[in-house]
Amino acid sequence: MTLDDAQTPFLAVDATVVRANADRLSRHLAGLGVPLRAHVKTTKSVDLAALLDDGRPVPITVSTLAEASAFADAGYRDILYAVGIAPDKLPRVTALRDRGVDLTVLLDSVEQAAAVPAGVPALIEVDCDGHRGGVQPTDPVLLDIAHTLAARGAVPRGVLTHAGESYFADGVAALRAAAAHERDCAVRAAAVLRAAGFEAPVVSVGSTPTAHFATDLTGVTEVRAGNFLLFDLVMAGIGVCTPSDLAMTVVATVIGHRPDKGWILTDGGWMATSRDRGTARQRVDQGYGLVADLDGTLYDDLLMTDASQEHGILSVRPGSSAALPTLPVGARVRILPNHACATAAQHDRYHVVRPGSRAVEAVWSRIRGW
Amino acid sequence: MTLDDAQTPFLAVDATVVRANADRLSRHLAGLGVPLRAHVKTTKSVDLAALLDDGRPVPITVSTLAEASAFADAGYRDILYAVGIAPDKLPRVTALRDRGVDLTVLLDSVEQAAAVPAGVPALIEVDCDGHRGGVQPTDPVLLDIAHTLAARGAVPRGVLTHAGESYFADGVAALRAAAAHERDCAVRAAAVLRAAGFEAPVVSVGSTPTAHFATDLTGVTEVRAGNFLLFDLVMAGIGVCTPSDLAMTVVATVIGHRPDKGWILTDGGWMATSRDRGTARQRVDQGYGLVADLDGTLYDDLLMTDASQEHGILSVRPGSSAALPTLPVGARVRILPNHACATAAQHDRYHVVRPGSRAVEAVWSRIRGW
Repeated sequence: MTLDDAQTPFLAVDATVVRANADRLSRHLAGLGVPLRAHVKTTKSVDLAALLDDGRPVPITVSTLAEASAFADAGYRDILYAVGIAPDKLPRVTALRDRGVDLTVLLDSVEQAAAVPAGVPALIEVDCDGHRGGVQPTDPVLLDIAHTLAARGAVPRGVLTHAGESYFADGVAALRAAAAHERDCAVRAAAVLRAAGFEAPVVSVGSTPTAHFATDLTGVTEVRAGNFLLFDLVMAGIGVCTPSDLAMTVVATVIGHRPDKGWILTDGGWMATSRDRGTARQRVDQGYGLVADLDGTLYDDLLMTDASQEHGILSVRPGSSAALPTLPVGARVRILPNHACATAAQHDRYHVVRPGSRAVEAVWSRIRGW
Repeated sequence: MTLDDAQTPFLAVDATVVRANADRLSRHLAGLGVPLRAHVKTTKSVDLAALLDDGRPVPITVSTLAEASAFADAGYRDILYAVGIAPDKLPRVTALRDRGVDLTVLLDSVEQAAAVPAGVPALIEVDCDGHRGGVQPTDPVLLDIAHTLAARGAVPRGVLTHAGESYFADGVAALRAAAAHERDCAVRAAAVLRAAGFEAPVVSVGSTPTAHFATDLTGVTEVRAGNFLLFDLVMAGIGVCTPSDLAMTVVATVIGHRPDKGWILTDGGWMATSRDRGTARQRVDQGYGLVADLDGTLYDDLLMTDASQEHGILSVRPGSSAALPTLPVGARVRILPNHACATAAQHDRYHVVRPGSRAVEAVWSRIRGW
């Protein structure tokens, strides 16, 4: 099977680029003396995660218990479930722990803490930028949660924060500031716990932007990031990577033309790319994605500008004087996505390639559902 | 299993509402003397399609060959693949036809026609509103395509058009006008074919909005629609249905609160709802969806206003004086989606319920991939 004959639309992933992305972040974090706890929510693939450390089970973060279960099946034993725990999911947590998985949960309320069974470790979510959940580092409820956990025999293992706003930072200065602020919030919250007598061995921070731009992680014990294995145009738009670092593309086939409108139509619609329009809020709106040929060379100012369920529309970027390339019916293109997490979720598998080759050397499955 | 204990997030589908939606459109089309060719792209479920005619295989439209294959396995024999054919998909078309499926393809170019094998029927796509592909009804290429098909021994079976712009019509007058225009374009193109000696037995039109608002379908031989089985807030926003006609919701669990921001957090993020923000372009922006309790009663002005991958944020509609409801951690809600096609695609199965009951009476699978 090759990129020329696999049935479109499908995901192509360049394993060499994934490996380079993994190595770059590992080197950066090693320089700061803090280990990575890779987030598998973007890739949802045991095979892709194996590129992180030559197949050795590394500490991971998951966004669903389905991911936790699949990675447990593959031998992973150190897993953080980094979505605030719903009490009725705790029996599944306990079942995974009974299988020998050191599964940690996340919470930010006394209500949740009061439901955690004895022996289950929990991180307390700290808010650093008003993006989602979490308690403020100095909010007295932080200690209420820790005391509630301890009283039940559950384990207040430390704190976690996620700089969600860093996805809207732009440029080196803003990214470094977001990273420093994320660390400060987490370290401050851990200090509150320790002053009250809790050991709080874990101080977990992370997002793909802050992981790459942190310059000092003193007091932090682990960094979470997931998007970086694949990267996407939103990350490129704020300067965390360049388009050449994107490891995943959607391969689509040209099925028609509308010369009157300057359109090329493909069989890759939003079902293949997702509805994510993350770059619409950035300085440069990339539509549904940039367009490259099968060998990965970008066409000049060609975008996927619109989508219906199974149709993509390619056209020249508004305002550009670039010419529409000649792409006959049957020609194939690669779409560089806005948001790797969302685009990958539209598919059940990855077609794995290497630079300079169109051969599909493996097909790797993705974990679905919850 | 009930709506209270199935693992969230998941899709709940009210089969009674589906049936009522099917009956309403069937009655309307019967009154106009034109049969329905249901589009299964929204529901992608053999079980849901069985509600159309008590399990009898009806003529259907598909958006992928994966759908065609799954419905062929279930005994469906009259299938239209309504996405412009990519030549390299034709071997799969032929394989399905060799299994006894009367599978029709769609095309709008001489290039495509020149690739269709002998014996394969094709509809020529006609553009009625500049929304996607298709030739103009009076464009000479229409006859070039028909002659190319005929010369190969393929079958120019007729014409198809889709009023994609009808999703942006608003109100009865605009919807009726879109339906009349869709019919006129298709009938005019068929007349061109017939004047040139082609039989053109099929004149296929349709979209959920135009199917419901057509008042005269003279000359049309079938109507395609798919969204109507489930409906969604985009359809409600233009007056094709009301929120009470929505058959599908996403069930999510409350996992946290941010009283400082007026937020309730749930475990239903965009992975459960999709990134579709279709109502953002309508008069009333419904965010990621309206919020109801488990029994289906809408909360006053409560929206899912934002989403990350596995987090939904519920808050009161901007400008509303409604109070945020009291929903403790562990409470469950139902999200009415913007776009049923996109939301359903995030899931592998439907949990089937009936009005007034929380019992899950069946779990129906969805068809994935291409």
